[in-house]
Amino acid sequence: MTITTPLQPTARTSLRRSKERAATDRETLHDVLRDGMFCHLGVVVDDAPVVLPTAYGVDLDLGPDGTLYLHGSVAARSVVAAPEQTICVTVTHADGLVLARSAFHHSVNYRSAVIFGVPRLVTDPDEKLHGLNRIVDHLVPGRSSATRPPNRKELAKTSVLALSLTEASVKTRAGAANDDEEDLDLPYWTGVIPLRVVAEEPVTNPDCDLLVPGHIRTRANQLGAPS
Amino acid sequence: MTITTPLQPTARTSLRRSKERAATDRETLHDVLRDGMFCHLGVVVDDAPVVLPTAYGVDLDLGPDGTLYLHGSVAARSVVAAPEQTICVTVTHADGLVLARSAFHHSVNYRSAVIFGVPRLVTDPDEKLHGLNRIVDHLVPGRSSATRPPNRKELAKTSVLALSLTEASVKTRAGAANDDEEDLDLPYWTGVIPLRVVAEEPVTNPDCDLLVPGHIRTRANQLGAPS
Repeated sequence: MTITTPLQPTARTSLRRSKERAATDRETLHDVLRDGMFCHLGVVVDDAPVVLPTAYGVDLDLGPDGTLYLHGSVAARSVVAAPEQTICVTVTHADGLVLARSAFHHSVNYRSAVIFGVPRLVTDPDEKLHGLNRIVDHLVPGRSSATRPPNRKELAKTSVLALSLTEASVKTRAGAANDDEEDLDLPYWTGVIPLRVVAEEPVTNPDCDLLVPGHIRTRANQLGAPS
Repeated sequence: MTITTPLQPTARTSLRRSKERAATDRETLHDVLRDGMFCHLGVVVDDAPVVLPTAYGVDLDLGPDGTLYLHGSVAARSVVAAPEQTICVTVTHADGLVLARSAFHHSVNYRSAVIFGVPRLVTDPDEKLHGLNRIVDHLVPGRSSATRPPNRKELAKTSVLALSLTEASVKTRAGAANDDEEDLDLPYWTGVIPLRVVAEEPVTNPDCDLLVPGHIRTRANQLGAPS
């Protein structure tokens, strides 16, 4: 199922500048989430923002707008602080350095999704396991069924948060540098240095004598590792 | 000059878990900042956290602990909200997916720096230009002197924030997956998929007939582009 409801703009997800960079369709949001591996989670702790990198998983079929899963140690400040308060989850792809003739028009090609909401602490054991599987499978599709699942003790040590993908904004920039008309003849090179995240050849643990399995090979190749 | 003062741990920069992952020396902080291209800036707006990706620059010689520069449109919510309140700046490198035999011990190899502080709005025109040059040169060393510098109108449109690198924490994970003793014989592959950010061949703007200059070539090659 693909959700095609437009994103619902609120004051904080309506862009005030560069409105042409706002992509308000759900499909773009889903693409940014699908292509990302990590997010930056923002929470407020003692009145100050705390921004931490973390993994995430997605279930587009859960809830009216789809659900994003986060997890953490039950002792982690950020996760403990998160339920019952608004959090912000940002996923960013840096696609290129945009070098203009003028310093002012230097920019970055990127795709970013910003999601706001009050997360739900997942307490149902089945959904908790489902959320954790989504996170592991987001990093490497098929991985959750090629590992030992979490046991009761491990589940008890782990908090899982579910965040509805309702209030979100997506912003993208792509393409060449845009200089002002009067700068076009300046003697400075202008262009883009494309960037991407690539995988290298998987490294088997020294204590493991198994061959690299298909799901690992597939993921590494998909991320550009030499096959 | 290299600052070797240890980072000053405060309540929010003292790690509560995985203390072995905390790197408390300034040199590691400087390395993480040097190797990063973008940060995630966290501010509190209307009691909610807002996390946005942005570029940054660094001047390790400015102030007792060095200075990080951020910039933005004077109309940007995040930058306008930032002076006189605590912000959080996080720089993250994702170095690898750590696939353990147990789902629970899945992890990520990474290096991240988290900096807290109340930023100073830069009003001195010389420092403002200096901060902007540091940001441009952080992305591509030498770039600020190969562009048209910002004019007065452009400077007026741009806010520059200076954040002291005083209150910071660095956390890193590297190496193989660590499973529990009792899981070592499970029939699941375990290892790491290394990740890195690479540049591709620079793309000259269609409206530019200059050759790719040395500073662009050097930066692209340093980021792994084929030479």
